[in-house]
Amino acid sequence: MDLQIVLLEPMYEGNVGSVARVMKNFGFENLILVNPCIIEDFGWAMASHAKDILERAKTVRTLEEATTEVNLVIGTTGKRLVNKQKHLRLHLRVPCFTPFELSEKLSGKQGIVALLLGREDIGLTNQELAKCDMLVSIPTSQEYPVMNLSHSAAVLFYELSHVEGGSNSLASQESLRLLQEKTRSLLRDISYPEHKIEYTVLMFKRILGRTELTERETRTILGVIKSVRWQIDKVRSGQK
Amino acid sequence: MDLQIVLLEPMYEGNVGSVARVMKNFGFENLILVNPCIIEDFGWAMASHAKDILERAKTVRTLEEATTEVNLVIGTTGKRLVNKQKHLRLHLRVPCFTPFELSEKLSGKQGIVALLLGREDIGLTNQELAKCDMLVSIPTSQEYPVMNLSHSAAVLFYELSHVEGGSNSLASQESLRLLQEKTRSLLRDISYPEHKIEYTVLMFKRILGRTELTERETRTILGVIKSVRWQIDKVRSGQK
Repeated sequence: MDLQIVLLEPMYEGNVGSVARVMKNFGFENLILVNPCIIEDFGWAMASHAKDILERAKTVRTLEEATTEVNLVIGTTGKRLVNKQKHLRLHLRVPCFTPFELSEKLSGKQGIVALLLGREDIGLTNQELAKCDMLVSIPTSQEYPVMNLSHSAAVLFYELSHVEGGSNSLASQESLRLLQEKTRSLLRDISYPEHKIEYTVLMFKRILGRTELTERETRTILGVIKSVRWQIDKVRSGQK
Repeated sequence: MDLQIVLLEPMYEGNVGSVARVMKNFGFENLILVNPCIIEDFGWAMASHAKDILERAKTVRTLEEATTEVNLVIGTTGKRLVNKQKHLRLHLRVPCFTPFELSEKLSGKQGIVALLLGREDIGLTNQELAKCDMLVSIPTSQEYPVMNLSHSAAVLFYELSHVEGGSNSLASQESLRLLQEKTRSLLRDISYPEHKIEYTVLMFKRILGRTELTERETRTILGVIKSVRWQIDKVRSGQK
């Protein structure tokens, strides 16, 4: 398994350097910075003996650019489920795994996994969370759940460093995107209530996200959707 | 279980503040600073919303003062076993548990546990390590094992926050100290090779450290040592 660490619009150079250091402490190498702050002396100093990771870090402008080649996108969030949230918001943030559960789920898998760490103040936006296949949250005290970015990174890397790869190839983002599209158009086609479609598509994304679909499984599901549509079309043309 | 975090001669105020923050993130409250650096604006800023923990932190001059009331002293070390170390050094650093193993071992126990975190440059001295009942080390990359102090703290607190206390009271430091003394004097008394005594005492400390002795068990072992000495004395007086 190839883990890529994606920092989304980090605001403080010290944190970027600290994350690089703790990446190297746990043997991770690929850092992607999306629209980051300027990294000057303090950031480089905090990287300590992991300056090579900062040097090799890829800087991009959007989350899309950061995740083009990726099989599985994992978002980190400090906010856990709050009661009485609307359904769509609910599926945005659940299910949310602990770092330990995440490392168990990734064991034995093969592919590129992107771990997104959000801004120091607001974390990941709802739009960014919706793009994630899976979510992880560190169980913290209710009284003061807001962790420093590099501390969260340390805990996550510690757990993920236990993950042993394997031969089960994860589905490509392309196939997963296709699956999402086909699901949406199938729902439209069967006159599923319009206001429920996005909610249901997100729910499917979360269900499939936590099963870490392989490419083969994804192709099979796409085949099933195709057969359903053929059948519907057949019945419809018979009714004409 | 009551966990006390002991920072031994921390050199950088930023790290002290960061450790306070991550303590609060995981619900720990008691911080003891042994002969610390001066904590000024940057240290307080890094504590963020955990300034109350810094305010209530106890400052002492020696490790002994920090651990008088403590049942179990746990040392943290980055250095793992190196081959061909001398025996005494070997027992200084082994066995060394992972944070996960430590949290398993502490589950169900009752008492005050001190977690020692050493200086940013040299960590804990051999003399300080010898005072610990148990050791913990975070499994890191061989290439760059040196973690930032507050990152190590984050990983340790994350694991230790899972520990659920219980009713098995841990032995007091006083009883453990007595046990060590009585073992040493018994070894002397039975003409155990002098050059092996300290090594053997340390080995016993490590064995007993990892069994998290209760007060009752410690008293029983002390009773057994007493009986052995009585018996020896009896035999000796018979020989006279």
